[in-house]
Amino acid sequence: MKIAFIGLGTMGAPMARRLLEAGHDVTVHNRTRVREEPLAAAGASRADSPAAAAQGAEVVFTMVGDSPDVREVILGPDGVVHGLGEGAIVVDHSTIAPSVAIEVANEVRARGGWCIDAPVSGGSEGAERGTLSIMMGGDASAIERVRPLLEVLGSTLTRVGDSGSGQLAKAVNQVVIAGTYAAVAEGLTLAMASGIDVEATLTAISGGAAGSWGLVNRGPNMITGHYPLGFRTRLHYKDLGIALDAAAQHEVPLPLASWVAQQELALLRRGFGDEDVSNIARLAREAAGIDALPVAEASEED
Amino acid sequence: MKIAFIGLGTMGAPMARRLLEAGHDVTVHNRTRVREEPLAAAGASRADSPAAAAQGAEVVFTMVGDSPDVREVILGPDGVVHGLGEGAIVVDHSTIAPSVAIEVANEVRARGGWCIDAPVSGGSEGAERGTLSIMMGGDASAIERVRPLLEVLGSTLTRVGDSGSGQLAKAVNQVVIAGTYAAVAEGLTLAMASGIDVEATLTAISGGAAGSWGLVNRGPNMITGHYPLGFRTRLHYKDLGIALDAAAQHEVPLPLASWVAQQELALLRRGFGDEDVSNIARLAREAAGIDALPVAEASEED
Repeated sequence: MKIAFIGLGTMGAPMARRLLEAGHDVTVHNRTRVREEPLAAAGASRADSPAAAAQGAEVVFTMVGDSPDVREVILGPDGVVHGLGEGAIVVDHSTIAPSVAIEVANEVRARGGWCIDAPVSGGSEGAERGTLSIMMGGDASAIERVRPLLEVLGSTLTRVGDSGSGQLAKAVNQVVIAGTYAAVAEGLTLAMASGIDVEATLTAISGGAAGSWGLVNRGPNMITGHYPLGFRTRLHYKDLGIALDAAAQHEVPLPLASWVAQQELALLRRGFGDEDVSNIARLAREAAGIDALPVAEASEED
Repeated sequence: MKIAFIGLGTMGAPMARRLLEAGHDVTVHNRTRVREEPLAAAGASRADSPAAAAQGAEVVFTMVGDSPDVREVILGPDGVVHGLGEGAIVVDHSTIAPSVAIEVANEVRARGGWCIDAPVSGGSEGAERGTLSIMMGGDASAIERVRPLLEVLGSTLTRVGDSGSGQLAKAVNQVVIAGTYAAVAEGLTLAMASGIDVEATLTAISGGAAGSWGLVNRGPNMITGHYPLGFRTRLHYKDLGIALDAAAQHEVPLPLASWVAQQELALLRRGFGDEDVSNIARLAREAAGIDALPVAEASEED
């Protein structure tokens, strides 16, 4: 299938590569053009603009930073809509405001195309392995038409409603991560401060009602106080902002997510924005005045 | 082995029964004596007091309500210590203050016995199936001696340190549950209020970084707003109180657990203390002014 992929960052580049390796005719474009080169070397065509990339493509993928970037790339002067053919489908994998996703989808529809909001979770590892969870909002038949392509990128594909709904589901995902990581950080801080065997405690509680992905996969790093990526605090803070704005529009109070966002802002302020978001444990630990445990050899592998 | 089991409540009764069915010579005692009868019918002996139950027993199990109950049952006028043989081991499965666990262990040791604090997680279902997680504090060789008995009760046995440490690990467990459930409740409330497909969203996010035992096992009940047990809010509130007291003694701030405890207190005040602790979702939902979704046929099975 002839497709375009716009936005070749940490997530976009491996996603575009997977589509290329699945045998599709892929045209790529990235604002910083040099990032197109590795994909061109692997067989992709290059385009000078989003509009040019979209020309002749049946499906156009976008994976950029935030709401203004999506507006620019899809609706701007050189945007996708200026090259998009009748009936072509835009799949936006960016995490943006649900209201902007709706606005963009309406505009694309008015010009004869379809736009699906399809934010993902699963990180760069998920992008490389094709195991992303893709949360989708938009026309159900358009989603069915792109499903074979999305199966190259993700292992869980879920339509949750009309345009904007995928972004709301992603917001829910980030809200749950916020509080869950905060809970793990607080519990492990108590364990460390009270002098019990923290690693044994982690093992003992992981299998029960306290268990979570964050506890199992980020707990060990919280204990040793090093926070390799993962998912940047800076980006999670951006996503929580989207979630809090969307919640405010629906008049839904999110006191816990709001509190975590403030903690993440403090981490950004102090220069920790590019660590993994599990670094909320820094603040819990510092509040208790305790040091991280030495990194054991076995933990270095993460 | 000749053992005693004191405290035949929701947890103690099935634990005593498992030990009996494993072929041990079990003497039981419960303050409300009628609760001894089903176990006596299954072959257990009955004793008039904790002291009497302890006589001749190599290992004495206790599973009672709170710190004062443990003091009474082990150290009181008719307490276990008055019947305990030289070198016998007390295994206290109750969830109590770490400081009281240390006090009791020291007193038992002064009288020639050993006491292990061994709180559990896994609920009545875990007690019935022998799949509890048992977190232990106390003398390592005493723990090794009782391990074959504990393997009848639990599938995860973890020594986390000296006396009181098992209680601290349980406190950590309850602190992590508190924040994790609160995070799930908040995220699902946003999903419900914003009109997306909540069940599809739950499925989409369960496998990733937002995933937790609480999300998978309690999320569906939070959505429909019915809260079958599980673990009573009343008891989790008690346990959080223990955790917050222990944290205060170690001068460890737990802002998230403290906030959740206040929410649970509000639930107790309003008569919801005997629902499952996942009913924190009531408050998130009420704050957003939205109703629970109708219970689907498929969800009735929980």
